[in-house]
Amino acid sequence: MALHPDRLFPADERTRAIARELHRNTADLPLVSPHGHVDPRLMSENRPFPDPARLFVVPDHYLTRMLYSQGVRPDELGVPSATGEPAEADGRTIWRRFAEHYRLFRGTPSKLWLDYTFAEVFGIYKDLGPDTADEFYDHLSARLAEPAFRPRALFDKFNIEVLATTESPVDSLEPHAALAALQGADGRKWGGKGGKVVTTFRPDNLVEPGWPGWKDRVEQLAAITGEDTATFDGFLTALRKRRQDFIAAGATCTDHGNLTAATEDDPKAAAGIYARALAGEATDDEVLRFPALMLVEFARMSVDDGLVMQLHPGANRNHNQWLYEGWGRDVGGDIPDATEYTRALKPLLDAFGNDPRFRIVLYTLDETVFSREIAPLAGGYAAVFAGAPWWFLDSPEGMRRFREAIHETAGFYNTAGFVDDTRAFCSIPARHDLARRIDASYLARLVAEHRMTDSEAAETAIDLAYHLPRKIYGLEQ
Amino acid sequence: MALHPDRLFPADERTRAIARELHRNTADLPLVSPHGHVDPRLMSENRPFPDPARLFVVPDHYLTRMLYSQGVRPDELGVPSATGEPAEADGRTIWRRFAEHYRLFRGTPSKLWLDYTFAEVFGIYKDLGPDTADEFYDHLSARLAEPAFRPRALFDKFNIEVLATTESPVDSLEPHAALAALQGADGRKWGGKGGKVVTTFRPDNLVEPGWPGWKDRVEQLAAITGEDTATFDGFLTALRKRRQDFIAAGATCTDHGNLTAATEDDPKAAAGIYARALAGEATDDEVLRFPALMLVEFARMSVDDGLVMQLHPGANRNHNQWLYEGWGRDVGGDIPDATEYTRALKPLLDAFGNDPRFRIVLYTLDETVFSREIAPLAGGYAAVFAGAPWWFLDSPEGMRRFREAIHETAGFYNTAGFVDDTRAFCSIPARHDLARRIDASYLARLVAEHRMTDSEAAETAIDLAYHLPRKIYGLEQ
Amino acid sequence: MALHPDRLFPADERTRAIARELHRNTADLPLVSPHGHVDPRLMSENRPFPDPARLFVVPDHYLTRMLYSQGVRPDELGVPSATGEPAEADGRTIWRRFAEHYRLFRGTPSKLWLDYTFAEVFGIYKDLGPDTADEFYDHLSARLAEPAFRPRALFDKFNIEVLATTESPVDSLEPHAALAALQGADGRKWGGKGGKVVTTFRPDNLVEPGWPGWKDRVEQLAAITGEDTATFDGFLTALRKRRQDFIAAGATCTDHGNLTAATEDDPKAAAGIYARALAGEATDDEVLRFPALMLVEFARMSVDDGLVMQLHPGANRNHNQWLYEGWGRDVGGDIPDATEYTRALKPLLDAFGNDPRFRIVLYTLDETVFSREIAPLAGGYAAVFAGAPWWFLDSPEGMRRFREAIHETAGFYNTAGFVDDTRAFCSIPARHDLARRIDASYLARLVAEHRMTDSEAAETAIDLAYHLPRKIYGLEQ
Repeated sequence: MALHPDRLFPADERTRAIARELHRNTADLPLVSPHGHVDPRLMSENRPFPDPARLFVVPDHYLTRMLYSQGVRPDELGVPSATGEPAEADGRTIWRRFAEHYRLFRGTPSKLWLDYTFAEVFGIYKDLGPDTADEFYDHLSARLAEPAFRPRALFDKFNIEVLATTESPVDSLEPHAALAALQGADGRKWGGKGGKVVTTFRPDNLVEPGWPGWKDRVEQLAAITGEDTATFDGFLTALRKRRQDFIAAGATCTDHGNLTAATEDDPKAAAGIYARALAGEATDDEVLRFPALMLVEFARMSVDDGLVMQLHPGANRNHNQWLYEGWGRDVGGDIPDATEYTRALKPLLDAFGNDPRFRIVLYTLDETVFSREIAPLAGGYAAVFAGAPWWFLDSPEGMRRFREAIHETAGFYNTAGFVDDTRAFCSIPARHDLARRIDASYLARLVAEHRMTDSEAAETAIDLAYHLPRKIYGLEQ
Repeated sequence: MALHPDRLFPADERTRAIARELHRNTADLPLVSPHGHVDPRLMSENRPFPDPARLFVVPDHYLTRMLYSQGVRPDELGVPSATGEPAEADGRTIWRRFAEHYRLFRGTPSKLWLDYTFAEVFGIYKDLGPDTADEFYDHLSARLAEPAFRPRALFDKFNIEVLATTESPVDSLEPHAALAALQGADGRKWGGKGGKVVTTFRPDNLVEPGWPGWKDRVEQLAAITGEDTATFDGFLTALRKRRQDFIAAGATCTDHGNLTAATEDDPKAAAGIYARALAGEATDDEVLRFPALMLVEFARMSVDDGLVMQLHPGANRNHNQWLYEGWGRDVGGDIPDATEYTRALKPLLDAFGNDPRFRIVLYTLDETVFSREIAPLAGGYAAVFAGAPWWFLDSPEGMRRFREAIHETAGFYNTAGFVDDTRAFCSIPARHDLARRIDASYLARLVAEHRMTDSEAAETAIDLAYHLPRKIYGLEQ
Repeated sequence: MALHPDRLFPADERTRAIARELHRNTADLPLVSPHGHVDPRLMSENRPFPDPARLFVVPDHYLTRMLYSQGVRPDELGVPSATGEPAEADGRTIWRRFAEHYRLFRGTPSKLWLDYTFAEVFGIYKDLGPDTADEFYDHLSARLAEPAFRPRALFDKFNIEVLATTESPVDSLEPHAALAALQGADGRKWGGKGGKVVTTFRPDNLVEPGWPGWKDRVEQLAAITGEDTATFDGFLTALRKRRQDFIAAGATCTDHGNLTAATEDDPKAAAGIYARALAGEATDDEVLRFPALMLVEFARMSVDDGLVMQLHPGANRNHNQWLYEGWGRDVGGDIPDATEYTRALKPLLDAFGNDPRFRIVLYTLDETVFSREIAPLAGGYAAVFAGAPWWFLDSPEGMRRFREAIHETAGFYNTAGFVDDTRAFCSIPARHDLARRIDASYLARLVAEHRMTDSEAAETAIDLAYHLPRKIYGLEQ
């Protein structure tokens, strides 16, 4: 579908004209992507992308969950089963099935992102549907075979300045090492400190003792770091050491996907639970409490080594039991929980919320906290920033509500800037385009209503799109 | 008041023009009313309506509660007391009192519905107020005496395709049987399977052991079905059998007004509580737990007999104790509770959320769950659909917020379509008119902002107004 | 900055024209300020205001908290420390520091209020920033030295009809007595019953036994009233008596800043806790329970003496521990809590919610309750009214969401009208201007969408701005 130059701008002509002008100044700024889930091997290996179905549909749970909600099973879409059941293997069949149901996405961000990608990245200016499915498939397949559509070529074409991936402490950082050894055409290193692709330290699978394989990973961490993780002190030392490896691989941030925002500052209790968990004797309550205790330990480490914390709580993981049993984690079966921040974060904020060496970015799936908790916290603690609307809220209306609910209490400069948070590499420009247009629209309304001046809005738009994420996620160096 | 043809459309001319066009295609579609509280006797007996006060004011707790909130007592409005106290008996006096306070309703849906009804149904194009109260009363009284204003004539004039009433398993289905014996002028049967008026199976008063008279109703159910309800198995068999009677009376749905959305899949526990409740020995906790257990039993029955479940939780019933003591249930004394769905529904969804034979429509009085819980559930389970904004949210702003919060995650096709949910028969066209205009307005905004195409929006508008409710509530046959 | 005459009106020209017209009728109405925190000594002593920094920046925690959230410490802004640490003393230095960070407030209500005040009150039509900081400081200092800028002169210039201050029962009412002895140029008394400045009875520090100094204050109350507060009966008698002093000082309202909205009607339990608290033996639970019990006692008193209750629950006080330890209470360290009203208020409403002698205005920091709880309560109880959006929500977007969420259920006439709730005297006209413009904008949208008529909206705008607060807060006499 051909993209309209005024897409996502308010209909009112007065406001639209302002939005258009504001957006003109941000449209070509480099993309800063401080949080996401692109596989670093994509960049280090730079192999051609697979077929269109495997590139766009199979791994994108935004898409497969919507089709599933209307009765199309994951195996019909080629999602690999967790139990060895066969799944549809033919890319074209999957693609046709997807095209047939594309109407389900009308007006949703998924469709806005895909239509942008088809048009702007792949040069297809038609509507996807049953009639055009094959044409799309052939066109996309042809493009994907070309060198200009290899990951690193697209990275540069997309004008990405920096892209953060996310790894666990026990993941290999070899792809990042390989990238660090590569020089880009622009003279910048592809990986490592200050590189184009950097990592993020995400220790979730080491702090949830109930997560299958936890003990093995704790031992793996010992092997990687040469520290004895049999004691809690050794565990902390190993984590600290591993963070240095991540920093060497370009990390400026950590990320924490705790079930809740609970925090507790009690190293002794943490040590006790750690010992009991290793011995297989921790209670269910202790297993849930350990991540809350560890969050404060990680904050303590951040004060020392400067990594910016990101907190992503509130996803009720694998809520759809049938999906989980059949297809495993991260296939679209998560549902948000109501999430409390104010009381939950107090122990962490008592300890570090006013420390100039510390910074934490708060995300939420529960938009009721935007005005009630996140804005007051971000506007009341030097260390706290409001993260971009996450996941179910990373949409035009979600982003608009985020600005409307946050801005008047916390201003613009306590928000951390857009993160695309995606594993769908090709959708990155589309997501930034959408976010910049929505921010331009919000600012345009403020200008049209004489709540800001043109020049204030122009500078703010650029700050939101570029300077703020660079600064707050520590990517300026 | 004369109705403006552009009423409820956005003010922006670009968007308004699109809304106008979208609405043009849905304005004349038949009305599908899969959930409501019209008395079936109205249709089966087809008697003239009572005087205007008793038709419009006395039974409508949207109206009486607003007047009460400003100090007009229910007895002054003719609401029959629960304690035998006298109430205002003169229709004209009640009507004048109402007209005198009509300003309280400025801009509210109640006024929009009434003004539509006065104009479009009764041909009065004036503003109701103290000065015109008598004129309205006389005009309405005259119309109501005419054959063209009998219920069945209005039903056809309103272009209602199907209207679902709501009955308890121990209610008589005779009105429905009478309707099934009647042929309409259009050749369709008035009642029974596929009829113009159908019933809905609402077992609340059989699953709340704390509701006065519960044991009597359980015995009544035995008498009606010929089953022995002294045991839990017998109770379930009786309910299953009674559902067949409802299906014969046209039912395609059940409805459940549980206090919360809690569910529990444990037939043994249910049987134990049932026995203790019959013996008068159930604890308070057990009494509250029983409806949660029964919800899963009803889901199990739905898988077998195909009735679509509707869940309406979260009304804190009879909150106003003084109103309840003086005038009984359903007089406007309910207040919403915060309501959790994600964890509450997990047992039911674990059991049937992915079963292609099962369907459940979720309603809420707590709009914070639209984006946080209902949209992700409807967009993540094949069996789940988002019900129309209910009660305090069945308003222009409520419907707009519903679309804005639900659509981007669940799309349009996981929403179940509008239900008028009314006992005020004459307001049905007004309510559908309002809902269609708000949906047209939302779609128009998406078109104006280039988030959907004209043709996508046109088809979607028709689907929302007509095809979706027919399909999802099982009314296509 | 020069103020645009259309500021805060919707951009759409059709709607803007209506808003402009609606606002024209309310712009010059007297300001009614039934709830705020201006120091009555300001009026009784009528001394010149201090320097611009001490007038605008130092005491306004909206401003200092935003600067603090970006790393500017309170002492750098001259906020007096609680521990005796030195703070910046030079007004001009503080002012420059503030001006340097003024960009943080872009588009926020704080900036809208300040810009209005600079322009409309002080006649400065420039943008505040590092370049103009000194010019502003000099200009403001010069004005503040003039007699026309003394508090009472400004009061009249601002066209304030009545201003309520807030005092504790153990605060001195002498400033109010002094005001009662003063005749205004308009012939009205400055203080006392029906005066221009009235007090409000706020007993928080007498009903929270955990608040340091509670016992001393209880004894102080005995000394002031001549009652024996050693018993609960005596305590209640003393409070009742003290309310008469407040009524004589013009009070028409009480105000209650309880931690939650919990209420309990159990005088015996209250008496027991009171005795144990005096003996230093109350448990933590009892300490928390006492304010809930007292709320019903205060309601009982209101039924007798006619004072209108205001309830402001849900502020998690002094959340920022570092700020609290360094600079004490009320310096911007509070964060809202999720707050439940429906169940919490039931005991109070069971007792008095339907009593024509009783009135309670509900405020909230948790906007999720607007549509779910406050609107249904205000629209369902004769005694309940919805208070204006409070604190973090006293902003253009917050006020818009308040109307959108409340109006359709409770109408306009169950809302109590705007309160500025400020200690920043010079900002009062700015705050009323903003509120009136936002209400005009909301009404204009309803008119533009043909949901209200012009004349309905015109009358409603005036009612909201003037008649409703006078009536509901008892200020008509």
